[in-house]
Amino acid sequence: MNEIQNLIAKMAKEAKKAAREVAKLSTTVKNDVLLGTAARILKDRERLHKENERDLKKAKEKGASTAFIDRLRLSDKVIDSMAEGLKDVAAIPDPVGEITKMWKRPNGLTVGKVRIPLGVIGMIYESRPNVTIDAAGLCLKAGNAVILKGGSDALYSNLALASILQEVLAEFSVPVEAVQVVSTIDRAAVTELLKREEEIDVIIPRGGEGLIRFVAEHSRMPVLKHYKGVCHVYVDKWADLKVAKEVCFNSKVQRPGVCNAMEGMLVHREIADEFLPLIAESFKDADVELRGCERTCGLVPFAKAATVEDWGTEFLDLVLAVKVVDSMDEAMDYIARYGSNHTDAIVTRDYSKARRFLSEVDASLVLVNASTRFNDGGQLGLGAEIGISTSKLHAYGPMGLEELTATKFIAFGDGQIRS
Amino acid sequence: MNEIQNLIAKMAKEAKKAAREVAKLSTTVKNDVLLGTAARILKDRERLHKENERDLKKAKEKGASTAFIDRLRLSDKVIDSMAEGLKDVAAIPDPVGEITKMWKRPNGLTVGKVRIPLGVIGMIYESRPNVTIDAAGLCLKAGNAVILKGGSDALYSNLALASILQEVLAEFSVPVEAVQVVSTIDRAAVTELLKREEEIDVIIPRGGEGLIRFVAEHSRMPVLKHYKGVCHVYVDKWADLKVAKEVCFNSKVQRPGVCNAMEGMLVHREIADEFLPLIAESFKDADVELRGCERTCGLVPFAKAATVEDWGTEFLDLVLAVKVVDSMDEAMDYIARYGSNHTDAIVTRDYSKARRFLSEVDASLVLVNASTRFNDGGQLGLGAEIGISTSKLHAYGPMGLEELTATKFIAFGDGQIRS
Repeated sequence: MNEIQNLIAKMAKEAKKAAREVAKLSTTVKNDVLLGTAARILKDRERLHKENERDLKKAKEKGASTAFIDRLRLSDKVIDSMAEGLKDVAAIPDPVGEITKMWKRPNGLTVGKVRIPLGVIGMIYESRPNVTIDAAGLCLKAGNAVILKGGSDALYSNLALASILQEVLAEFSVPVEAVQVVSTIDRAAVTELLKREEEIDVIIPRGGEGLIRFVAEHSRMPVLKHYKGVCHVYVDKWADLKVAKEVCFNSKVQRPGVCNAMEGMLVHREIADEFLPLIAESFKDADVELRGCERTCGLVPFAKAATVEDWGTEFLDLVLAVKVVDSMDEAMDYIARYGSNHTDAIVTRDYSKARRFLSEVDASLVLVNASTRFNDGGQLGLGAEIGISTSKLHAYGPMGLEELTATKFIAFGDGQIRS
Repeated sequence: MNEIQNLIAKMAKEAKKAAREVAKLSTTVKNDVLLGTAARILKDRERLHKENERDLKKAKEKGASTAFIDRLRLSDKVIDSMAEGLKDVAAIPDPVGEITKMWKRPNGLTVGKVRIPLGVIGMIYESRPNVTIDAAGLCLKAGNAVILKGGSDALYSNLALASILQEVLAEFSVPVEAVQVVSTIDRAAVTELLKREEEIDVIIPRGGEGLIRFVAEHSRMPVLKHYKGVCHVYVDKWADLKVAKEVCFNSKVQRPGVCNAMEGMLVHREIADEFLPLIAESFKDADVELRGCERTCGLVPFAKAATVEDWGTEFLDLVLAVKVVDSMDEAMDYIARYGSNHTDAIVTRDYSKARRFLSEVDASLVLVNASTRFNDGGQLGLGAEIGISTSKLHAYGPMGLEELTATKFIAFGDGQIRS
C-alpha cells in the first residue's frame, strides 16, 4: 500500500466508525452543530479569506479563467450565503426516524419501514469551496458521515472550512471524523476513494460531464449523478399563447447556463405560424440564437438552419434548437430520443394531452404550463438539494434530505416463529 | 463488434423500446398477461418437461450434483408453483401511477411524486428456470421490460418458458421484447449486458457470492444485491426464556440453508447459565453443531471451541456460532463487526432495550421477539419478492413490486415562471 492508499483507507474507516455515532445524534444536536458552524463561519471570515487567498493566488499564477476564479472565491457574499444555507438546513425537519409505513401481519407481527441515514457519503466536486459547507450540512442533518474531495485548486479553502466544522463538531462531542476533507491534491485519491465499497455507501459527484463519467466508470459503489440537462418545452396546438411565450422565454433566458434551462423547443404545426414569429421576437431581443428545422426557418427569417448536432445538445448558452412537429406523439418521440431525462414541459389547455404528457414523458420532472427552471430542490419545496439525479434508482430528480436516507424494515413481535 | 456484442446490443435496444410501451400498459392488460401465462404454463406442461429434459440430460452427462439437478428440474410441483406465483403477482395492487406525495407551493404550483417503472431490468441468475417466470412476472407487473440471463445449463428450459411468455404477450398486443431470454451460453454475454448502461436501468443478480461479486464489479449500472446473510439473535438479560428458545430454534433450524437463518447467537452473561444449557439441548436434538466462546463451552460441554473464522461466517448449515456477551452494547458492536446488514433480532422484555436495538442495529430487517426467518417479501406482507438487498441505496431488505419502480416529480402549473 502506498501513502495515498493508506490515507484514504484510514479516512474511510474512521468515517464508517463516526457514521454509527452520527446516526444516533438527536435532531437538537445536529441543528446545534449546523447553527454553530454558521456562526463560526461568519466569525472566522478573515481566516477564510486568508486561506482562500492562497488558493486564488495559485490559480491566478496558473492562468485560470475569470469564471474559474469567480467560482473559487470565498467572497463575503459567498460566506454569508453558506451561513444562510446552514440555517436553512437546520430549519428543515429531520428525516431520520420517520416511519414511512407500518402494518400488521395476520400472525400479529407489526412490520414497518423507518428512515435511517445512508451511512458514509463520498462527495467529489470541482473547485467550488461553498459546496464543502453545503454538502456537509445536508449530509450531517440526514445523519451521515461525509468524505469531501473537492477540486485541488480549492484545497486550502476546503481545509479551512473543514477545520471550522470539526471545531464545532468537537464542541458538541460529535466525532470529528464525521466530516473529513481529503487533504491531498493527488488525483489518485479519487480513484482510491471509489474503491472503498466496504466503508462508503454512495458517491455523489458534482461537476462537468467528464468528471461524472470518470466517477461512474470507476466507482464500485452506487453513484447518484446527472450527466446533463437537455430540457424541452412542447408547445401544443391547444396552448395558451401568452403562457407559452412566458414559459418558453423563462425556461431559456432566465439563467441559460444551468442544467434546468430549456435547450429544445417543440411547436405543434397548427400553432407554429402564429406562435413562432411571436416568441422569436422576444428571443431576438434577448440575443437568443435560434437553430431551427426547415419549417421554423420558413417562419422565422433570422433563425439559422439546425444541423443534426443541434438536436439534443446541452448549449448552456443563449442558443435554442427549435422544431415544428406534427403531433404530440412526435414531440414525445423526439424527447425520448434527444432528451436527457432531466426536465420536460408541455404548454397546453387540453386536459387529456396534459394527462398523457405527464404520464408518458420519462424525465425526473415533467411540468404542465410552468417553466423548466423549477427543477430545483428549493423551488419544488424540498428545502435544499445536494444535486439532481437523472438515473432512476434511489432518487430521480432533485435530491433533498430524504434522498440522503434509506429505509430499513423493523418488526415488533411477541415470539412469532415461522412454520 | 463481434456476434455476442451484436446480439446483446440488439436485445438491449429492443428492450428499451419495449419498455416505453410496457410502462403505459393498464393494470388490466398486465394482469391478463400474468394470468394468461399461468394458464399456458399449466397447459404446455409436456412441452416444458421435454425441453427441461434436454437440459437435465446434459447436466447429468456433465456429472452435475443431485442438488444442482433438483434446482434445474421443472417438476410438476415447480410448474404448479410458477403458475400460482403468477396468480399471486396478478393479485398484488399495481404500484405504477401511485402518487406518493403531493403538495402546493406558495406560487400555486402543485408538485407531486408519482411511481413509475424503472425501465429495463437485467436479471442474472443461476440454473433455476423457475426464476425466469418469477422474475418476469414481477418485472412486468411493475411496468418494466426485462432481459433474463439464466445459467447456461437451463438454456432450453428458459427459452421454452420465454417463448410461452412471448406468445401470451403477442396475444395481448404487448411487444414481445418486453421479456427476452439471452439465447447464448457464451459467458461473454454477461459482460456485454453489464456494459449496456444506456439501455438497462438496473441489474439484479441472484446466486452465489462469486456471481454477485462478479456482477457488482463489472456492471456500469446500479446493482441490487445481497452478498450473504449472516444473521444474529441477541438474547438479552431480560429475555422471556420460552420466547428466546423458540425464536432462536426457529431462526436456526427451520431452514438452515437460506440467507435469513441465524448464524450467530449472542447471549447476555446474566442469563447464559440458565438459557444456554436449555437451548443447547434442543439444538443437540436437532443435530446443530455449536461453536462457542470460552464461556459458552464452559456451560455447554458438547459445544466445540469457536475459532476466529467462525465469527461472521455464513454456515448455511446446522452449525451455529455462540458467544456470551457482557452487555447489549457488546452484542451490537459484535453485530456491526461480523454481521452482513441482513437480519438481526433481539429477544427481550425490556422496553428501552428493544427501542435502542431497533434504532441502532444497521440491518435490512431488525426484529424484536420474532424469528429472523421472517425476512422475506411474502412473510413481511409485500406479496412477493425478487430478492433481498443488503445495500442501502434504493432498496434495503426484501424487494417487492414497489422496489421495482422509481418516482418522478410532476408539476401542475398555470403559467408559473421563475423570477
